Formats: sequence, C-alpha cells, structure tokens
Amino acid sequence: MLTLGALLYPDFELLDFYGPLEMFGSLGEDLRIVTLAQQTGPIPSTQGPQTLAEYTFENAPDLDLLLIPGGIGTFPALENSALLDFLRRRAPKTRVTMSVCTGSALLARAGLLDGRRATTNKMYFAMTAAASDAVHWVENARWGVDGPFVTSSGVSAGTDMALTVIAQLFDQERAEQIAAMTEYQWHRDADVDPFVSYLNQGPLPA
Amino acid sequence: MLTLGALLYPDFELLDFYGPLEMFGSLGEDLRIVTLAQQTGPIPSTQGPQTLAEYTFENAPDLDLLLIPGGIGTFPALENSALLDFLRRRAPKTRVTMSVCTGSALLARAGLLDGRRATTNKMYFAMTAAASDAVHWVENARWGVDGPFVTSSGVSAGTDMALTVIAQLFDQERAEQIAAMTEYQWHRDADVDPFVSYLNQGPLPA
Repeated sequence: MLTLGALLYPDFELLDFYGPLEMFGSLGEDLRIVTLAQQTGPIPSTQGPQTLAEYTFENAPDLDLLLIPGGIGTFPALENSALLDFLRRRAPKTRVTMSVCTGSALLARAGLLDGRRATTNKMYFAMTAAASDAVHWVENARWGVDGPFVTSSGVSAGTDMALTVIAQLFDQERAEQIAAMTEYQWHRDADVDPFVSYLNQGPLPA
Repeated sequence: MLTLGALLYPDFELLDFYGPLEMFGSLGEDLRIVTLAQQTGPIPSTQGPQTLAEYTFENAPDLDLLLIPGGIGTFPALENSALLDFLRRRAPKTRVTMSVCTGSALLARAGLLDGRRATTNKMYFAMTAAASDAVHWVENARWGVDGPFVTSSGVSAGTDMALTVIAQLFDQERAEQIAAMTEYQWHRDADVDPFVSYLNQGPLPA
C-alpha cells in the first residue's frame, strides 16, 4: 500500500487538494491518504470549509507520494521556514511529489525545482514564478514532469495530473476506470493547455 | 450574501462535495459556505480525509442553497431519520437544493422528489433509484432541474451543475469567469451525458 501525504496550510484552494485526492482515494486498498500540516487540527481553506490535519511535519509517516495544493495561502506560506524545511526533508524521499496551481511556488522557494521545468496557474503565472528565478517556468503546459516532481497548472489541472500519475504508478486501464467511475472528462494531454490564453490576466473583473 | 449549507455525513464522496464548493466558494463576498451534519466535528469521507462540520441539523442558519453529496455513505444514511427530517424541513425553504451522485437518493427517500424528474450516477443507477419509485428517474442527463431541485449525475457532474446554478443565480459571465479562474473545462450541456454508456455496470473490475 502506498502512502500519499496531502499537505495543508491555511487558505489552501479546495479543488487543488480534493480533485487529486478523489482520484488517488479511488485506488482503494492500494493507497492511503494522510493529511498533514504544521499543526494537527482543522485547517481553513480559501473557500471556508476546514479539513482536519492528522499529522504534523514532525510525526508524518514515510510518504511515497506528496501533494502540495495552491491557493491564496501559498504566498504567506513562502515565508514559513518550517514548511519549506519539511519539503526539503521529505520531497526527495518520495517517488512522486506533485503540486497544483501556486503550490509549485513552495517547491521552487524550497530550492527543489532549481534547474528543473515546472508550471503553475495561468492568471497568476508571473506572480507565482517570482518565487524563484532558478526554475525553468513553462507557460504552455496543463502539467509537466521533471524527475520526481510533477507540477500542474491551475486548480482543475491537478485532477488531470493525478490521473496521469495513477496511470504511471499502476497502468492506463486503472486510471481510465477511475475516470469513468467518477464521471470525469479527463484531459489527457499535458501539452495542450486550454487556459494559457489567460496568462497573467490576474483576476477577471467581477 | 447567500448562505450555502453543505451537508456532511460519514463516507461522503470528496469530489461530490468539493467540486461544487470550489465553484460556489469562488463567489467571494456574494456567498458563504456553512458545513453541517448530525453532529459538529470531523466527518470522514469515503477516501479518508475528514472535514469539519460547523453546524448541526438543529442550529444550522437559514439556507439559501443546500448541497447534498453522494458516496457509499448514502446507503446507511437512507435509514437516518434525523437527516431525512432535516431535508424535509429545510430543502423546501431554499432557493435551490442540489444533489450530486447518490445524494439524490436522500432527497428521494425524504419524499421531496415525488413526481419530479431526477438523475443520479450512472454505474449505480438502479441501486440509487431504488430509494423511491415515486420519482421519474432520468438516465440520460449530466444534471437536471425540476423546480427548486437540481440533481446531478456522478461525482464530477456536480461541478458542471454548480457552474450552471451560479449562472442562473448571477449571470453567465460570472460562471464563465469562475470556470476560467479555476481552469475548469466546463461541460455546459445538461442533456449530453458522456457516461450514460456505463449505466448499471457497477464497479468496473479492478
């Protein structure tokens, strides 16, 4: 059984976190999800609802996979040395470390993406990429793989990325089954990005 | 500001709940989400992670919108009279009551869909529809509206439904903005169901 560590921090984006966890959580006995944060207890999302963190950076079990969501909370988290130290200690020991949306800024700031290719969400691309100039930031990508790191574009792109990682860890058939069971219209091509046209447009006027 | 009540019960399906909440939660100051369950505290999902319920069936605030997720926990919940009574008391007072996946079985068992058209997830269609024979169950629908009730097909269909409800409550432009910000490839046609071919096929062999 694989163990996936799902990182929480205040003001994480709900679907960054839960889109991938729906897909990985559909693997049944082949994978368990553990939630972790700087402290245990309820962690509020950007949208309001709170998720329980079960483990801390100190007592988290060994992790095969690590998921790092984005959200407006990413930007204060860039200054959280305990969180960055956790990533530096643990990400290199995983088989796959995944980020969604602005979550790649945390990996970048931790130095883990130095010299690597990575992507992030499109509307806030430059703002996120400012976390590190040692990364080769790729604008036109739904998601991208470089070594053990898989970084995805904004929010919903994480769900597409998760199914692809499942196909790599298990096989394509297993990922297709999960997409069908969750009635998810899986966008299978990492290099086709329907949202790159919104690059750096920031929040659209409400 | 609208108030959306998001119902939790043990073994709810993560993306049934959080796909719609991502979209509604992106309305900022125009909407607040409250989580509610039979008791306050952490409620475990089918996939493991636990969400905090903030209100009970007794002390929940007035609700403009109500969201009912599905999941394997739906079937024991069909026998939960406190939950069904809550739905009978509160759903008729909302502007819109939404269900995702097997969540429509709870509305059906509560008698709220009697004589109405409703849908549910495709692989477990007959199993869910067995909750009530007073409902006109529609097989070929991504989601459907009948009066104040909007019922969606499995898991990811709830996210498409949510954007459509947002377009109705606000306007199409607002829903399009949220889809773009969340990089979500919105399936806009309720009557085109890519998953009806899986009707009653149950879980695919692992």
